[in-house]
Amino acid sequence: MTSLSGVWAASLTPVTPALDPDPDRLLAHVARLLADGCDGIVLFGTTGEATSFSVAERTDLLDRLIGAGADPARLIVGVGCAAAVDTVTLTRSAAAHGVAGVLMLPPFYYKAVSDDDLAAAYGWIFDQIGADAPAVLLYNIPQVSGVKLSASLAGRLAGEYPDVVRGLKDSSGDLESLRGFLAAMPGTAVFAGTELLLVPGLAEGAVGAISAAANINAGHIRTAFESKAAADIDVLREARAILSAEAVIPALKAVVAQRLDDPGWAIVRPPLRPLAPEIGAGLAAALPVA
Amino acid sequence: MTSLSGVWAASLTPVTPALDPDPDRLLAHVARLLADGCDGIVLFGTTGEATSFSVAERTDLLDRLIGAGADPARLIVGVGCAAAVDTVTLTRSAAAHGVAGVLMLPPFYYKAVSDDDLAAAYGWIFDQIGADAPAVLLYNIPQVSGVKLSASLAGRLAGEYPDVVRGLKDSSGDLESLRGFLAAMPGTAVFAGTELLLVPGLAEGAVGAISAAANINAGHIRTAFESKAAADIDVLREARAILSAEAVIPALKAVVAQRLDDPGWAIVRPPLRPLAPEIGAGLAAALPVA
Repeated sequence: MTSLSGVWAASLTPVTPALDPDPDRLLAHVARLLADGCDGIVLFGTTGEATSFSVAERTDLLDRLIGAGADPARLIVGVGCAAAVDTVTLTRSAAAHGVAGVLMLPPFYYKAVSDDDLAAAYGWIFDQIGADAPAVLLYNIPQVSGVKLSASLAGRLAGEYPDVVRGLKDSSGDLESLRGFLAAMPGTAVFAGTELLLVPGLAEGAVGAISAAANINAGHIRTAFESKAAADIDVLREARAILSAEAVIPALKAVVAQRLDDPGWAIVRPPLRPLAPEIGAGLAAALPVA
Repeated sequence: MTSLSGVWAASLTPVTPALDPDPDRLLAHVARLLADGCDGIVLFGTTGEATSFSVAERTDLLDRLIGAGADPARLIVGVGCAAAVDTVTLTRSAAAHGVAGVLMLPPFYYKAVSDDDLAAAYGWIFDQIGADAPAVLLYNIPQVSGVKLSASLAGRLAGEYPDVVRGLKDSSGDLESLRGFLAAMPGTAVFAGTELLLVPGLAEGAVGAISAAANINAGHIRTAFESKAAADIDVLREARAILSAEAVIPALKAVVAQRLDDPGWAIVRPPLRPLAPEIGAGLAAALPVA
């Protein structure tokens, strides 16, 4: 199995003009990202608009992708839903394919929940999955999910479920937060959730980065991973600054559409809206050469 | 069809010890609430732990409830999901049963969304549902969903889809917010999302209240609706103060469990946790007599 470390792309999920998941475009995208220097691919993260698809659409797309030849050992699959029962369904589906791991948001609708509530929710999910549990990475992205995972909760879950909780993705964007998780769950695979914290994160024990920008910037991120040099982050920072002028998921899709001369790639699902082609062209022209 | 006005209970959703939806307990609860003075019942709102159930569980429970004799004309069904496609599925299911209306959260995972994004998302959902659209109540509960509906967005949707958008539930708990919706969407059914704003809301044009506390307090809310007297809110305020010492959904279920001497009623789904029976007994003893 591929080790849970290195440079992983939080893949976009292409859709057809009817907004259906597009396994052909996705398969080609996954192959490009691996060729560009990614160690693996995270499907159905926040960047992949995971929560904008039904459970059936998600399991079906994974089936098709792997059926068409994608290597499950190079895939981590996002499985976290508002409903813990849906998280169980998606985790079982991913486990049956032998993927490298799953990325698990906490149930994210209710916001006034305590660490004890979240520990019980994760515990219930793990109990339901049972002996077939794949490697679970907890997923902290409070600015989107609205539910923050504390370092003490992550440490507690890693201690109570050492064969299940094998790491965490911290997308808070905050180095102090990343340090807290590294201290709380030693020996597990803690990923920075942004390439901008890849080099400082590696210096403190993170195993790598799971990056949205890797969809358009994988080569530069690979270079930074190999060199571990702070100077190699500058080009990544420049790219992020350009992308952040727009909503990042539509911006990333628009840039892929421009680079491939494939306008359909720019389509997003509601509640996101696609960028106008001329905006995408401007972004693609401004970005550092990939 | 029952008119969209008056006192509606945001029903709890009872579950079995295995955490499966319990249609028998729910059917009995719905009948009790109507007998206690509710004009109708909202299933699968925030109080009903809607987002903790799968789409299949929600459609199945509605099928069973109506199959067992619940009057669809007295039901509003919550249909809003993180994924707009799931909202479409649930709305079609509710429409097929001829329910009085549906209560529709915006897609709630992504937080950095604009009014234009949300207008496009709602528009996409309405277009998918097409001519079979039931009466839609928009659902504003930003402190839980993390996505605020502005009055101008609600007014815009009511103007563009007058045959679909027939009202709104404002659970912000803020009278100024309720006034904004009343001004923006005249002629539609705007409900206060708490019984505490029932009397001031009625004075300003709201059609009634959709209330979580009605699960344990319907008679007193009915009295306030009939009298429109501010003094009749005092007992409702007292009940709220007692309930708010605990997480409100587990507290409401625990009180129902005590009153019916049916401990199974106290069970909740993750990420919520049930209250200990002695806590429920304390709440039930402290509450004003129903």
